[in-house]
Amino acid sequence: MAALAEISGAILADGADPDLLIEDVAPLDVADAGHISFLDNRKYVPAFETSSAAACIVAPNFADRAPDGMALLLSETPYRGYAQIAHAFYPADPGAGSVHVTAFVDATAVLGADVTVGQNAVIESDAHLETGVVVEAGAFVGRGVTVGAGTMVGLGASLSHCDIGANCQLHPGVRIGTRGFGFDMSADGHLDVPQLGRVIVGDSVEIGANSTIDRGAGPDTVIGDGCKIDNLVQIGHNVRLGKGCVVIAQAGVAGSATLEDFVILAAQSGVAGHITVAPGTRLAARSGLMRDSEPQAKLAGNPAIPAKEYFRQMAVLAKITKDRSR
Amino acid sequence: MAALAEISGAILADGADPDLLIEDVAPLDVADAGHISFLDNRKYVPAFETSSAAACIVAPNFADRAPDGMALLLSETPYRGYAQIAHAFYPADPGAGSVHVTAFVDATAVLGADVTVGQNAVIESDAHLETGVVVEAGAFVGRGVTVGAGTMVGLGASLSHCDIGANCQLHPGVRIGTRGFGFDMSADGHLDVPQLGRVIVGDSVEIGANSTIDRGAGPDTVIGDGCKIDNLVQIGHNVRLGKGCVVIAQAGVAGSATLEDFVILAAQSGVAGHITVAPGTRLAARSGLMRDSEPQAKLAGNPAIPAKEYFRQMAVLAKITKDRSR
Amino acid sequence: MAALAEISGAILADGADPDLLIEDVAPLDVADAGHISFLDNRKYVPAFETSSAAACIVAPNFADRAPDGMALLLSETPYRGYAQIAHAFYPADPGAGSVHVTAFVDATAVLGADVTVGQNAVIESDAHLETGVVVEAGAFVGRGVTVGAGTMVGLGASLSHCDIGANCQLHPGVRIGTRGFGFDMSADGHLDVPQLGRVIVGDSVEIGANSTIDRGAGPDTVIGDGCKIDNLVQIGHNVRLGKGCVVIAQAGVAGSATLEDFVILAAQSGVAGHITVAPGTRLAARSGLMRDSEPQAKLAGNPAIPAKEYFRQMAVLAKITKDRSR
Repeated sequence: MAALAEISGAILADGADPDLLIEDVAPLDVADAGHISFLDNRKYVPAFETSSAAACIVAPNFADRAPDGMALLLSETPYRGYAQIAHAFYPADPGAGSVHVTAFVDATAVLGADVTVGQNAVIESDAHLETGVVVEAGAFVGRGVTVGAGTMVGLGASLSHCDIGANCQLHPGVRIGTRGFGFDMSADGHLDVPQLGRVIVGDSVEIGANSTIDRGAGPDTVIGDGCKIDNLVQIGHNVRLGKGCVVIAQAGVAGSATLEDFVILAAQSGVAGHITVAPGTRLAARSGLMRDSEPQAKLAGNPAIPAKEYFRQMAVLAKITKDRSR
Repeated sequence: MAALAEISGAILADGADPDLLIEDVAPLDVADAGHISFLDNRKYVPAFETSSAAACIVAPNFADRAPDGMALLLSETPYRGYAQIAHAFYPADPGAGSVHVTAFVDATAVLGADVTVGQNAVIESDAHLETGVVVEAGAFVGRGVTVGAGTMVGLGASLSHCDIGANCQLHPGVRIGTRGFGFDMSADGHLDVPQLGRVIVGDSVEIGANSTIDRGAGPDTVIGDGCKIDNLVQIGHNVRLGKGCVVIAQAGVAGSATLEDFVILAAQSGVAGHITVAPGTRLAARSGLMRDSEPQAKLAGNPAIPAKEYFRQMAVLAKITKDRSR
Repeated sequence: MAALAEISGAILADGADPDLLIEDVAPLDVADAGHISFLDNRKYVPAFETSSAAACIVAPNFADRAPDGMALLLSETPYRGYAQIAHAFYPADPGAGSVHVTAFVDATAVLGADVTVGQNAVIESDAHLETGVVVEAGAFVGRGVTVGAGTMVGLGASLSHCDIGANCQLHPGVRIGTRGFGFDMSADGHLDVPQLGRVIVGDSVEIGANSTIDRGAGPDTVIGDGCKIDNLVQIGHNVRLGKGCVVIAQAGVAGSATLEDFVILAAQSGVAGHITVAPGTRLAARSGLMRDSEPQAKLAGNPAIPAKEYFRQMAVLAKITKDRSR
């Protein structure tokens, strides 16, 4: 327990044995002797109160709800503390450090030390993979693409016209650098506009399974350091994401929009093209933002408005409808 | 016809020749001599009335709309009857029953009888494929994954951290067992939480092309027997689907939500995290459910409310707007 | 400049040197000596006024906003003109014209002249690839599939049960010809209906990354000539798209719907099954169309109504809510 307190920056609660041996992490409802769990969501207090976990990392204000005999680590950020402890028990797999015999690596590609290339993966001409990169089975790294140290390119993912930073996780089936959806519409036939830019992905970026990021039309599409992008997300051409943005599953950002730092787009939401989303803006699930936002704005609806206003409007509409149906 | 009546559990209508030879199935508008068709949707009665099909399976109450000379099979479940007849004409392809020379199968993987593995597919260490499994070209079955008898793993699909039941259809590009979207957010950088669970998929489950199912954070993500999941669907970590749920294209279920048996999510709808959707709930297309539901509820809107109430609200709003614009 | 005027059908403005040498295209904000840019969106007039581009193609009514010394090409369709000029600088890559040694091509497949097949791609029995087809690495062309001259099949894409026209672009990860989502629902278990149709794709069609198009149940799914489909789009079974339809990212069309010519579905919108969308209909982003539309209709909302009406309703609701909260 003392070691876990140090790893997580948490404090051993009174009565917790610093020498207690913890062997694994587990959720509250299945944790048992030898396990440490965590409480981060008020909804799970009942599970906490009845858990058989030997230990738990928890915010101080919930400490008195713990069952007898549970050893506590106290932290104002218990979920982060849990993440740090779980990483200690489950360090990331570094990859085999070798190129599988069925992989195709072009003679002009440059591979750093300890690079892993899986079965049937393809590394094209002039690609550059830095130290410790893992390219999983069936993935494709296109001509001239660069991939920073420690980055993982998932199963069957494909990268072209892009530069990827260090320590990124690109999950299975992601498509980066595909042609932006740019064309001139006409009744005589729509005419493609060549898409000449790239996709520039910063460090420590996560991109979820089957998500798609188009390359820029002329400028580049840019994903800032530390962005977390979930599954089945669409990022259009020329889009710019600042640092630490979070884009949840099935959300989309239309071409030439800019998201400044720490913007959060909840699931299935959308941002219109050519607008600027101010730092810290939070867009609710299933909402559509059509105008520039204010910093730290919390928005909902379609077109999105302040979230409080949206939910008030829904309540008013329900009231009026009820009154009329009497 | 007599054989088709038996296959489908339907009744030969008066005047239908039991010895009539039927050679194929076809839709009402193109069916001709030798073909049997079906009528299941009131919208297609005109096509029924003018069809040249030799025979048709139909509910008794539409029988009098049949054109002269058409032989009828009467069934209260004509679509099911048609499905049974079509299966008789088009039995499922069992696969070649062999491993293609370009496939990679780890020496520790266990393959049952009549397993088919396509070109460039990859079967990793300790994977276990039961009798009759078909792994199509370019698909990936990860370390320790189990796949039940008769299941099909589609083109380029990837499975990791999961156990798949029998007689499932996993369509091209599905991603099962990818990292759940779990991290602690902080302005200092978001920190991943290791995702330690698996995905458990029951028997006779269908998962559509390019759909994604994340593995659990600690508990498992569970898909019950007989669930039908369409294309481009997202299922978050720790989600539990009961038996026979239907999730239509581009819908999503956020982390730790539970869908009990026979829930139907229509296209492009969404279910919020950490809620429970009661048995038989039907969520309309493009709706967002944010709270626990009642059994057999029919819901629409965002946040979803009873569907009748939603459509009434839309009508009231239209009326008020019209009144004001006078 | 004179050559670029000819290529684009534009007129050299007074004072523009016909002998000025242009070496590349570039966006307004980064263009410099030797570059030609374009102005097409009023929002970018400030960038136009301060651009260092040597030349620009622009509508006549913006000509007087040009900075001193910029050579202008005048066109009523400057974006199309720019597209034509950019194609001259960046002609499409014809492919290597050879089959990679790691590709699998069945002995019964027929390949026309100058066909390119990338690493680990698979061409199945009786497939037919016409002149100049490019099948990128890891892509799959199934049994009996035909692909027209000059078409590109992107990285890891998979085609089955389909016929593809000439000069199409099928981007990475597209899934064409997958099983339509057809089954009879029952508490005893849902029963699949065999999907016996194909997907017929016309000429000059673009289909975006990770989009999915299911094959017909009995009739075919049809995509008309010149359609432009963006990323992560779902097209259900039996759907028919006319000529020149545009379907933007994450939109979906449910089974058996018909889109007539030049329909535009904006991002994240949806069309219900079994309806007909009239020619020229434009459905706004995040809207859901549930009924047949009128030609040239502009619709928004869910269920979609005339867009002007939708935005008026939103304004009325905001006003009422504001009045009540006083």
